[in-house]
Amino acid sequence: MNSRHSSAAASQRPSALASRFARLRAQTEALARPLSPEDCQAQSMPDASPVKWHLAHVTWFFEVFVLERFEAGFKPHNPAFRVLFNSYYNGVGDKHPRPQRGLLTRPSMAEVLAWRAAVDQRVLQLLQRLDEAPPGDALPEILALVELGLHHEQQHQELLLTDVKHLLSLNPSDPIYAPAWPLASVAPVRATWCGFAGGLATLGHTGDAFHFDNESPRHSHFLRPYALLNRLVTHGEWLAFVNDGGYQNPRWWLSAGWDWVNAHAIRAPLYWRQEPDASWTSFTLHGRVPLDDHTPISHISLYEADAYTRWCSATCADFEGARLPTEFEWEAAVAPAAQGAESVAMGGNFLESRALHPMPVARVREGLLQALGDVWEWTRSSYSAYPGYRPWAGAAGEYNGKFMANQYVLRGGSCATPASHIRATYRNFFPAETRWQFTGLRLARDA
Amino acid sequence: MNSRHSSAAASQRPSALASRFARLRAQTEALARPLSPEDCQAQSMPDASPVKWHLAHVTWFFEVFVLERFEAGFKPHNPAFRVLFNSYYNGVGDKHPRPQRGLLTRPSMAEVLAWRAAVDQRVLQLLQRLDEAPPGDALPEILALVELGLHHEQQHQELLLTDVKHLLSLNPSDPIYAPAWPLASVAPVRATWCGFAGGLATLGHTGDAFHFDNESPRHSHFLRPYALLNRLVTHGEWLAFVNDGGYQNPRWWLSAGWDWVNAHAIRAPLYWRQEPDASWTSFTLHGRVPLDDHTPISHISLYEADAYTRWCSATCADFEGARLPTEFEWEAAVAPAAQGAESVAMGGNFLESRALHPMPVARVREGLLQALGDVWEWTRSSYSAYPGYRPWAGAAGEYNGKFMANQYVLRGGSCATPASHIRATYRNFFPAETRWQFTGLRLARDA
Amino acid sequence: MNSRHSSAAASQRPSALASRFARLRAQTEALARPLSPEDCQAQSMPDASPVKWHLAHVTWFFEVFVLERFEAGFKPHNPAFRVLFNSYYNGVGDKHPRPQRGLLTRPSMAEVLAWRAAVDQRVLQLLQRLDEAPPGDALPEILALVELGLHHEQQHQELLLTDVKHLLSLNPSDPIYAPAWPLASVAPVRATWCGFAGGLATLGHTGDAFHFDNESPRHSHFLRPYALLNRLVTHGEWLAFVNDGGYQNPRWWLSAGWDWVNAHAIRAPLYWRQEPDASWTSFTLHGRVPLDDHTPISHISLYEADAYTRWCSATCADFEGARLPTEFEWEAAVAPAAQGAESVAMGGNFLESRALHPMPVARVREGLLQALGDVWEWTRSSYSAYPGYRPWAGAAGEYNGKFMANQYVLRGGSCATPASHIRATYRNFFPAETRWQFTGLRLARDA
Amino acid sequence: MNSRHSSAAASQRPSALASRFARLRAQTEALARPLSPEDCQAQSMPDASPVKWHLAHVTWFFEVFVLERFEAGFKPHNPAFRVLFNSYYNGVGDKHPRPQRGLLTRPSMAEVLAWRAAVDQRVLQLLQRLDEAPPGDALPEILALVELGLHHEQQHQELLLTDVKHLLSLNPSDPIYAPAWPLASVAPVRATWCGFAGGLATLGHTGDAFHFDNESPRHSHFLRPYALLNRLVTHGEWLAFVNDGGYQNPRWWLSAGWDWVNAHAIRAPLYWRQEPDASWTSFTLHGRVPLDDHTPISHISLYEADAYTRWCSATCADFEGARLPTEFEWEAAVAPAAQGAESVAMGGNFLESRALHPMPVARVREGLLQALGDVWEWTRSSYSAYPGYRPWAGAAGEYNGKFMANQYVLRGGSCATPASHIRATYRNFFPAETRWQFTGLRLARDA
Repeated sequence: MNSRHSSAAASQRPSALASRFARLRAQTEALARPLSPEDCQAQSMPDASPVKWHLAHVTWFFEVFVLERFEAGFKPHNPAFRVLFNSYYNGVGDKHPRPQRGLLTRPSMAEVLAWRAAVDQRVLQLLQRLDEAPPGDALPEILALVELGLHHEQQHQELLLTDVKHLLSLNPSDPIYAPAWPLASVAPVRATWCGFAGGLATLGHTGDAFHFDNESPRHSHFLRPYALLNRLVTHGEWLAFVNDGGYQNPRWWLSAGWDWVNAHAIRAPLYWRQEPDASWTSFTLHGRVPLDDHTPISHISLYEADAYTRWCSATCADFEGARLPTEFEWEAAVAPAAQGAESVAMGGNFLESRALHPMPVARVREGLLQALGDVWEWTRSSYSAYPGYRPWAGAAGEYNGKFMANQYVLRGGSCATPASHIRATYRNFFPAETRWQFTGLRLARDA
Repeated sequence: MNSRHSSAAASQRPSALASRFARLRAQTEALARPLSPEDCQAQSMPDASPVKWHLAHVTWFFEVFVLERFEAGFKPHNPAFRVLFNSYYNGVGDKHPRPQRGLLTRPSMAEVLAWRAAVDQRVLQLLQRLDEAPPGDALPEILALVELGLHHEQQHQELLLTDVKHLLSLNPSDPIYAPAWPLASVAPVRATWCGFAGGLATLGHTGDAFHFDNESPRHSHFLRPYALLNRLVTHGEWLAFVNDGGYQNPRWWLSAGWDWVNAHAIRAPLYWRQEPDASWTSFTLHGRVPLDDHTPISHISLYEADAYTRWCSATCADFEGARLPTEFEWEAAVAPAAQGAESVAMGGNFLESRALHPMPVARVREGLLQALGDVWEWTRSSYSAYPGYRPWAGAAGEYNGKFMANQYVLRGGSCATPASHIRATYRNFFPAETRWQFTGLRLARDA
Repeated sequence: MNSRHSSAAASQRPSALASRFARLRAQTEALARPLSPEDCQAQSMPDASPVKWHLAHVTWFFEVFVLERFEAGFKPHNPAFRVLFNSYYNGVGDKHPRPQRGLLTRPSMAEVLAWRAAVDQRVLQLLQRLDEAPPGDALPEILALVELGLHHEQQHQELLLTDVKHLLSLNPSDPIYAPAWPLASVAPVRATWCGFAGGLATLGHTGDAFHFDNESPRHSHFLRPYALLNRLVTHGEWLAFVNDGGYQNPRWWLSAGWDWVNAHAIRAPLYWRQEPDASWTSFTLHGRVPLDDHTPISHISLYEADAYTRWCSATCADFEGARLPTEFEWEAAVAPAAQGAESVAMGGNFLESRALHPMPVARVREGLLQALGDVWEWTRSSYSAYPGYRPWAGAAGEYNGKFMANQYVLRGGSCATPASHIRATYRNFFPAETRWQFTGLRLARDA
Repeated sequence: MNSRHSSAAASQRPSALASRFARLRAQTEALARPLSPEDCQAQSMPDASPVKWHLAHVTWFFEVFVLERFEAGFKPHNPAFRVLFNSYYNGVGDKHPRPQRGLLTRPSMAEVLAWRAAVDQRVLQLLQRLDEAPPGDALPEILALVELGLHHEQQHQELLLTDVKHLLSLNPSDPIYAPAWPLASVAPVRATWCGFAGGLATLGHTGDAFHFDNESPRHSHFLRPYALLNRLVTHGEWLAFVNDGGYQNPRWWLSAGWDWVNAHAIRAPLYWRQEPDASWTSFTLHGRVPLDDHTPISHISLYEADAYTRWCSATCADFEGARLPTEFEWEAAVAPAAQGAESVAMGGNFLESRALHPMPVARVREGLLQALGDVWEWTRSSYSAYPGYRPWAGAAGEYNGKFMANQYVLRGGSCATPASHIRATYRNFFPAETRWQFTGLRLARDA
């Protein structure tokens, strides 16, 4: 990460950053509070990480990228942690093998929490000293790295929730993460198409606020006229697809998707289960619940999303020509509407399978509902570099660029994404078969 | 395939198509002539098919898509062949499992050749009858399907060569496919950058000539200024990458590429072997030969191509900023130059690892050498639908669209591609780890 | 192989051995005659080998173990063959990887047959010269090695048949190896128990005739009183097990067997298929045929054999206490009866799934039918060294000893075993899940 | 388990059994005391189980086999536990998949300990009531089942230690289970051969004391004269094998062993590590320590043990003819000497890689040292039924018999085996590649 990215951070006082740092770090620990040490230890699959590992890894980030470089007389809290909690930064050195994260029973949860407290104190001291001293050359870079570390921690806040959901789902006793999960009721919304004129759109992040390197540079992209559906595909609609034998008919599926469906005997979204009385339930962070027809569908792969569009295009006149949007169509539609909305505090965050009340600005201008903070929306766009893309310098350059192969872009944020982490230019990405994230879809078509 | 695609075929006389049909079918058999029945039987890996299977499958295509639908009193040559030689058309019915194609010892090669002869005769009779009769409603569709079948057969001509090369390479005695493989000498070419202005380009196939559905529709795409290197990356340049430890340094690699390199202990392009005296040789269709410094590199994965660009960008001032081109940059540069050149007979086809003399038209206008018919050039573009893309109707609709996931586009054709099958709008596609095709790369950069 | 084992061979004239050599080598080629070059090329699974490979490997044995050591001025027919056709003799040097035997399209079948002819001629010349010259020191060893090579070739005659059966069975068109396969009708035989007194039995090979190192030394083994059933378990009896849900009930199965049944979704013996009318057929070397109730069951794993004994012990009063025999119980029962019978020519060899007329001598003394030459009988004995066992010296020592882990002993020979290769002390061995050999079972119980 | 097995238990008073029950259950919990909840949660591989699972499963055994059948008004502590903590008893019903035991974060360790306390109290009440009431018909069976449950718990005490050792070994920081592990120093012992006359031996358990069904019936077995080495193979001797390239030379290895060594790149016993200074260390329950030359080698597979015997037979004159013993040779040598010794309290149990002071009785009679309680000794005997073996009736019949395939017998107990669980007729069994148990070897040879 270099000075190109420090403008946002540089414009703020270290003391302001320090208070955000303290608040956000505490939020992470609050997410782990309903969990036992055992819950925080287990790793349900190689793609997921233990909660304890998340808590440690985000701390590792501050220790290695901030303290190690800028703290006078730096000594590591525990030298072994440098390898144990490196995720994928080859530039930093060795890493512990990812599938064995669940076997690291030492350090214990208590030791990790102590490490967090120590690092918090040291980072805060560093920021306080910066606040008091005359601004030096390193100031912008330190602020930028702390800022990056906070956004990094927010990403792991979401992963912590998706990973623990996956873990708990494998326990036959259907454990509950948090019974009092705040839920907003979702009223049925009639589906309508919102048209967009296309033409030469300017996409990518603009302005001084923090953003990842993969959101830039701002650039032009030509779009044909298109339309997006005003709302997300719902559980009720998906059930119709299931009941129509959608998972058994190769006609709807990409070739790789059809292989995937058969290799894993997939018949429904992740977490769905058909009960002895033939009804369907879904596993959520507040327990196992019956399907709610009007909530957005979630926990589907790109393959399923794509098959669904083909099925509903062929079987429902209203949806003829339905397809997945490109990430460019999505951003061109949502970004102008979201302008100014980004600072709006979204109250109903962390709503499991429950749509947020739509963002006011977006609703006014385009009629687009549920675009930010409900479920990540699959696009048909392969994750790749924007024209003129340059990764950050140094080890932080491994943050995004090296994953630009065999992944697809998702947009919009989910109910598990921290509200201040959601923005219209944000590019999330996962392989096509990913399902344990809060992933859904919105229909698009040529206008 | 529907009438939208029949204009090219419809404009020609059935008799002209018949004579192309006869010539092209004979060429396929000529490719198998240097091989024993055993050579034609074996399948070296699930991705490859036996030569005998190729000969049968392309015949299956004419029997099922043409004769079965349009021949009066149609009877299958052998009903069992309908399942045995279906590749991936779910619309046609059951298929024999792909990894077991090498176990189909019956029908024998002789029986397959007899089947070919019988189908040839029946298709030719059908075309002759069309030539004599007044044009009916079915005429355009029949001609279009025969045309499609010929292009399909040309694709398998190339696969036949790449598959048999892979098979023979696994035999420790380094067998030779054809010792008298025609070779053109490649003189060293100084590397220079050819600049392109960018702007709103119009891409995709235009005109009435045959093309696949994935090349259309013609559409606009915005490009920033960029440059392409005048020639392909060579064996000599690649050796420098190998000798610099390029395969052992994670810095150059995509994350998925680094996993792939380590999982398979990859240290050099496919078919390279380091001899006891430390020199390198490569296995070719004319035997095992020492590396030739000036021939284009071939048999590399997208991961290797991508890693190479990062390495040479960082280590060589002339190539700073080198990256893979997008398929749009490639087509925008080559298509205008190739206009009118497509009918030029390329004499030196089937040159194993040997560059064609550059196409005259292309050379004049852009300086771009080796763009058509040397090796397929990896692009960074994921294989996906053009805006407004519609797959062909019917079973032929499975030809292209259902593979639009986790594949990357290659452009330009190779020394194993039939000359009349090469065109500037052609989109070949393979997964990122593919190496047994004739795959190489050309450097690009922002202007 | 050292002089301890040459007594049998040494007692015969080289000329007698030469004529057996010529006859037996010709028999091998006769077995391949119904097959095309393609049939001889393919390898259906890593456990099986191509017919061409069998023809080559047994020739390799004579070239490497006999000619290379004893022919004056020896030159290899083709030096590459030494590696290509080594099966598992680490003492000889490198080997071609077993799962890739089907990819060796060169040498062709014609070249392998030419190699056979050349080696035949050279071995016969060597034997002729030995016949004419005064006996030298090497004579016993040469004769012993040729003798060993003939028994080795007989083993591969059987494997050739079982491997080609497996290959052809994977072709959906159910090809026929030999329509005129000689069949003997099997009359129903009432099941009765034959009792044996037990006590201290003397087991292992005795006398000068050829035998493998694993059949010696002759040694004592204590047996409790036991009984064997007079005949083999039949197809009809097995069908009752299938129809009773035997493959779905964990109660009958060893733990490893239950895992195996479920991992491979096994519901019947290998080669059985349930037809649309619910009847069962079996694939044989003379084509696909309906089950014949009275022929011995074949193509079952040890797990299935073991589960069957538990099922019929629990469900049928006549078979209470049924279990698999030990190899010692089997030999103690059969060997005395077979004494003198070993030279009896068994006419009806190669009967696919058809019982031989029982051996006269055995029938007279014990009532034991179908003990030699019908199907290999699984025993519960793990394959291990007899007390005092010493492997042959030299590379031939790898013949048997190194396989003494995780294999179970089978006794009695099958309809695919050459008659002169069958004897009561012979120990065949395969892993517990093996099914592509002609494997069946005979019930035993405590007396 | 039926009345045949109740004699031992029936001869004791319920109150005596109750006090043993209380003591032994407490010992199990003591073993878990040095561990955190996280340590008790993780599962390092499918073969191993979490400590928490062990604590729960042995409790499940008492609840399902004792309380459920004999407690008046039985109600399960938690109905979900019946499935969650079933190991492999198909007769009891469904089971949770073994490789996912580490994902059961609920119930927590605290809940499992509460369950243990509740079951303990209920079992003790049941026994107390039996003590007070007139003896009923069920008495012998109840006592026998509690007795079985205690032996079952002792087996899991050992597994708990081997499993947690494996888990901790995978942590790069080399955690320590218990620093104050009691160690006895092992003085060097000169190797000498102890001869045994052979003949008809009587083997298997005798007398009324508890034993597993697989130790019976007592039966005769004929043995040739043989010798056993007076002590176990040591770390120092094994290092010589390593340094001589023993793991790289196929000459020493069984074929399956050679495949295993190469597939897993094995170069030394499990837990050995070569340090940067080329010295070797081993991971133990008291931390990572340098090799101690005179302690018995441990953590080797049967393949390694077998290869070692062949190597030392060929390279050391004193050990010519060395081989693995059969389980019969071992028992015939040790059982008579151990008679009367079984009740001797072995003080130095749980000595990690440290030999017990030899058992006094054994030393006097045979000179055989380290035969009981140091490391399990691999034998060449496949695990199979003794002649006349009958599994226990009911679900307890799944305890042993169904594992009699592809496993080899080990004898003698290890430093992790509870002293009162060791006896000369005890048959432990594991697959040939097992290494995470305390497994070593003693040389044998023909006399």
